[in-house]
Amino acid sequence: MKLGALNPPQRLLMGPGPSAVHPRVFEAIGKPVLGHLDPAFLEIMDETRSLLQAVFGTENKLTLPVSGTGSSGMEAALVNILEPGDHAVVCVNGAFGGRMADIVERYGAHATRVDSPWGEIVPPEKVADALNETPNPKVAAIVHVETSTGVLQPLREVARLAHESGALFLVDAVTSLGGAPVDVDETGIDVCYSATQKCLSCPPGLAPITFSERAVEAIENRRSKVASWYLDMTLISKYWGSERIYHHTAPISMIYALRESLRIVVEERPGARYERHRLHSAALCAGLEAIGLTLGAQEGYRAPMLNMAFIPDGVGDASARRRLLDEFNIEIGGGLGAFAGKAWRIGLMGESCSRASVMRCLDGLESILRSEGLPIPQGAGLSAAMERYESGS
Amino acid sequence: MKLGALNPPQRLLMGPGPSAVHPRVFEAIGKPVLGHLDPAFLEIMDETRSLLQAVFGTENKLTLPVSGTGSSGMEAALVNILEPGDHAVVCVNGAFGGRMADIVERYGAHATRVDSPWGEIVPPEKVADALNETPNPKVAAIVHVETSTGVLQPLREVARLAHESGALFLVDAVTSLGGAPVDVDETGIDVCYSATQKCLSCPPGLAPITFSERAVEAIENRRSKVASWYLDMTLISKYWGSERIYHHTAPISMIYALRESLRIVVEERPGARYERHRLHSAALCAGLEAIGLTLGAQEGYRAPMLNMAFIPDGVGDASARRRLLDEFNIEIGGGLGAFAGKAWRIGLMGESCSRASVMRCLDGLESILRSEGLPIPQGAGLSAAMERYESGS
Repeated sequence: MKLGALNPPQRLLMGPGPSAVHPRVFEAIGKPVLGHLDPAFLEIMDETRSLLQAVFGTENKLTLPVSGTGSSGMEAALVNILEPGDHAVVCVNGAFGGRMADIVERYGAHATRVDSPWGEIVPPEKVADALNETPNPKVAAIVHVETSTGVLQPLREVARLAHESGALFLVDAVTSLGGAPVDVDETGIDVCYSATQKCLSCPPGLAPITFSERAVEAIENRRSKVASWYLDMTLISKYWGSERIYHHTAPISMIYALRESLRIVVEERPGARYERHRLHSAALCAGLEAIGLTLGAQEGYRAPMLNMAFIPDGVGDASARRRLLDEFNIEIGGGLGAFAGKAWRIGLMGESCSRASVMRCLDGLESILRSEGLPIPQGAGLSAAMERYESGS
Repeated sequence: MKLGALNPPQRLLMGPGPSAVHPRVFEAIGKPVLGHLDPAFLEIMDETRSLLQAVFGTENKLTLPVSGTGSSGMEAALVNILEPGDHAVVCVNGAFGGRMADIVERYGAHATRVDSPWGEIVPPEKVADALNETPNPKVAAIVHVETSTGVLQPLREVARLAHESGALFLVDAVTSLGGAPVDVDETGIDVCYSATQKCLSCPPGLAPITFSERAVEAIENRRSKVASWYLDMTLISKYWGSERIYHHTAPISMIYALRESLRIVVEERPGARYERHRLHSAALCAGLEAIGLTLGAQEGYRAPMLNMAFIPDGVGDASARRRLLDEFNIEIGGGLGAFAGKAWRIGLMGESCSRASVMRCLDGLESILRSEGLPIPQGAGLSAAMERYESGS
């Protein structure tokens, strides 16, 4: 077999992740590989943990990147806390809430689902009811930003309800971390996981995770071994802790990349970073509406880093996205589940979240939609976005 | 928090993995990230699969890299094949065989252990007995090269016995793949997994895996869902197959790196590569014996890419390895389990397997041992290795 060297095209990544990667992160990922027990690498692990604690907003000791993508973080969170027969309240208003419920059941625990329509938040009252109806709920699990719909779920009230009922509060911050406040300790989150390729703008491959002291206690008091050996925090914590007992070979180069991407997040400062996401999303949404698209997520609860908009009637989903990719080198996401073929998901995450991205995307979309016959006044999207930028709101 | 840019030292990696990474692989890992459903990335996935098939020596369609390190490959192999209540025969002659048995039990299956002393192979007769004694054995699992001892297990006889008893034959090729013949189809292996950071000389983070048609049939005929959602091949195969259904976001940059490292393996040609590993191991072992070390693995079954040698009396394990690291920038591995503190594990894997590595390691070790008072004639190790190189055997 004869294959040439790798030569991937340079896309503008505005899908649901991965997002653009800063040149500094590419520089870090190519640094010499160290052994996973090399003292120089152990120091890098400690630094990475400190940076993760800063970005999560937590002092949790058990904070580390799981050696897998965001979904492995979801599985790690659930499989460490739950034992067969345990009860979990799982909020489901999109694909990722559904995935949590699936994982809970696979490991022999019971999921009380709190279903809400895709595109809307899960009302805290419904969570309260589910917690009341569930015998000894061990955990209440919710997705902060549903990547399948772009809804941003308020967390504090649900955190309070979970704790009142004696449950741990588990949050999927895959899409939100680095782009909107998560503030693990202040919010009262007991288990929180994320992914590297969204608002942290690192290549995909790791799942940052953090466990509160109450969560660690629950793990320590398990009656059974954690079902997954690979994700077993009772073992992994001995490698990331002072014992340094080998568990599995750490993904060295990816940890280099994560460390650098977190350094960039911390340098920007969280407040400025969240404001940047808010501003560009506001401009993008104004532009999308100006070219005739309707926003999909519930008003007042729209996530800035993932903007869902319905595809205008008569426009082909796959063909329009393919033209955007081929003619403009821009990737946006298609709809998932209930919204497959009906909506687009436009990401503005981390390094991808800029005025240049917004303008380039609106330019491309407007041009394609007009060529499909939609009566859009020339430059309508760009003008609307520009107006937003000039008003700064 | 103020942390500087990453600046890891350049080590000669001669531990049990990671091994040295070729500059071409670093170039590939830094290429622009693509979306996991980008047509250009789907092509890269297909190419990576073809390369994996070539290196595994298989035509198995279900061949792909698991999105985690080698141990996730082990878990993926077992959790997809086994269901609660199933019986597995697991050969245990070191740490990694023990890990397999642990995983089997965690998922509610039964492991019939075939224990053999650490440092020795598992005799096929003992496997035959275990297969006979086990009701409906679904799988017989064995480690090809035990990374904890450096033993290379012959596979063909065990493959035959497994198939005779109706079991699938599962092989851990984490340390062997790319450095010794695995030949999945010819050997009769049904499930085989490896890791990227050993003889493939790619950074750690992925676990190549392959399933035969019989293994795929077993997965398709499961009565229960695969317990691990993240490792569920019934879902992952739909992303790697023609359906391209999203499961989890692929670790794009690591797949770039793997593709390039496999390209290098294929360019060298397997036969030449195995011979290279054999030759340098022979030279290293001659040198080690000449400076007074005793080889640890059973004679006739020594793996070329992982050489275990007992530490001479009176020499401190940790302090000697630390001096080798600090004064010579060379990493070798300590002993595991039964051999902790008693033996060293010296890797010669992929890019790390060269005459330069052998000589530099013998130079450093001899120098340290002599300074610890061992009566080694100057240059004894280097001379012995050189003699081997000149004889070519």
